[in-house]
Amino acid sequence: MKIVVLSGGVGGARFLRGLRSAAAGSELTAIVNVGDDMWLTGLRICPDLDSIMYTLAGVNDEQRGWGRVGESERVSGELREYGVGWPWFTLGDLDLGTHIARTHYLRSGIPLSEATARLASRWDLGVRLLPATDDEAETQVVLADGGSLHFQEWWTRHRAALPTRAFVYPVGSSKPAPGVLEAIVSAHVILIAPSNPVVSIAPILAIPGIRDALSAARAPIVGVSPIISGAVVRGMADACLTAIGVATAADAIALHYGARSRGGLIDAWLVDETDAALTSAIEAAGIRASAVPLWMRDLPSSAALATAALAAAK
Amino acid sequence: MKIVVLSGGVGGARFLRGLRSAAAGSELTAIVNVGDDMWLTGLRICPDLDSIMYTLAGVNDEQRGWGRVGESERVSGELREYGVGWPWFTLGDLDLGTHIARTHYLRSGIPLSEATARLASRWDLGVRLLPATDDEAETQVVLADGGSLHFQEWWTRHRAALPTRAFVYPVGSSKPAPGVLEAIVSAHVILIAPSNPVVSIAPILAIPGIRDALSAARAPIVGVSPIISGAVVRGMADACLTAIGVATAADAIALHYGARSRGGLIDAWLVDETDAALTSAIEAAGIRASAVPLWMRDLPSSAALATAALAAAK
Repeated sequence: MKIVVLSGGVGGARFLRGLRSAAAGSELTAIVNVGDDMWLTGLRICPDLDSIMYTLAGVNDEQRGWGRVGESERVSGELREYGVGWPWFTLGDLDLGTHIARTHYLRSGIPLSEATARLASRWDLGVRLLPATDDEAETQVVLADGGSLHFQEWWTRHRAALPTRAFVYPVGSSKPAPGVLEAIVSAHVILIAPSNPVVSIAPILAIPGIRDALSAARAPIVGVSPIISGAVVRGMADACLTAIGVATAADAIALHYGARSRGGLIDAWLVDETDAALTSAIEAAGIRASAVPLWMRDLPSSAALATAALAAAK
Repeated sequence: MKIVVLSGGVGGARFLRGLRSAAAGSELTAIVNVGDDMWLTGLRICPDLDSIMYTLAGVNDEQRGWGRVGESERVSGELREYGVGWPWFTLGDLDLGTHIARTHYLRSGIPLSEATARLASRWDLGVRLLPATDDEAETQVVLADGGSLHFQEWWTRHRAALPTRAFVYPVGSSKPAPGVLEAIVSAHVILIAPSNPVVSIAPILAIPGIRDALSAARAPIVGVSPIISGAVVRGMADACLTAIGVATAADAIALHYGARSRGGLIDAWLVDETDAALTSAIEAAGIRASAVPLWMRDLPSSAALATAALAAAK
């Protein structure tokens, strides 16, 4: 079975790890957000691709929630002494190996999708990682005062705390990376990971051609709520949702995505069992809804969630 | 007093450290070889500039003879796992901070001389570091079999052991970096550090304009032999000298540089006291020669050598 997952970083990574365990033998493809990528001190940083790669490789830092386990920050200390880079954005030494290798490929004219495949080939990930696009389309945040800044500055430096008017995905004439449309077309199931709808999933959908391919896909599209009991599991999706006028609630996000039968994105939606009362409103909007345990505490709970998502596709 | 030093890496760095101690109050400028610079995994590496910067900053590894003290190789280990870079050329983590910051500047359109000044401003070096040129002019080695390779590959990977026909300095239309010609013109003394004549000093002299400026300089030009008792102090200058048909001897190098009064480079030359017997041949070639202790074991011996070089300029 061919399964495609639209995914952001950490939440998506855990979901993919569970799916790999639950769907052994299937062909898994992750279409990954690159909206929060950036150039920093001349290096190309792709946080979501790296979070997924590290998590699937088993070298991520589970405790901290991001980056490599056993990480050190010797190089970053030097960059700080030289007054170069963003002092509020620390690059780990092991992580820098990835950034340097990736940037080396990109500077050699190799597109991000191929660079990603080369990096990933170091490990046996069991999931093909595709950036949504090989083009640079970095999410910008428009503030209430009219100013704008890079998503990473808004997110990491200001902890999503600045009054915000809108998110802009400057996709221009970006094209889906090679393999993305083909994966969507040939998929048997398409899943939307419990990732941030506004700054992880929306930037993927904004790439010209992806949304149309999803609409036309023969596969059912099943989403998993990133919100449980009206609260974020991790990250600051609540600030993003509030900024675009969507409530921090599992049903509100389902309605925001919309029923595919009515021109929206999804056929089915999973909410947490604590949000079971919300399923009727979702069903009323034309989206099949199921309430299952959404917390991905560990591999078994992540695999159970993935199994439930696959079941909801039937 | 304004003192200019033409310099390669480690030997030059030690000489400069001695000079800084011996000539307190003087204005010191080092014109530094960039012929062994290279791009490696998308980063610009400038070994000689860095050796001097680290040595003058007191953060060099005295024991190993190159790089930063307390160095680690976490990033390099990752690059090796990704199969990127030269496995025989290890980049230290602290050192990589320098390379990343420099490359960041260069990619932003800042020339190497300005990038070097910014990096150096982190410390109080007491010596102005000027790359010989802002342009890329990487020394190539032509082998006896007709093949050619980058100097660093010949030097570091093959330990200067391949039969060699010639060294090529592809300076093209390179220009001296801003400040280089001005420093030479206004100098009161010009010193040639005990650096490799073939791959450290010659690439500086090859930059169009530098040799003419040295010929026209009002300052006396004093060189220090990198060879003591017919042997290299460190490095593999003997292999380089042999390849160009110059004996590994203090007098042979003096004659190779030639007397300025006869169209050559130097006015005076320092040999080690163990090579005192060679001074008459050097004098006969029109070059004032002195025999003094050349070994730079520590700061006092380096400062004494610098003092002797300044005395020879008189």
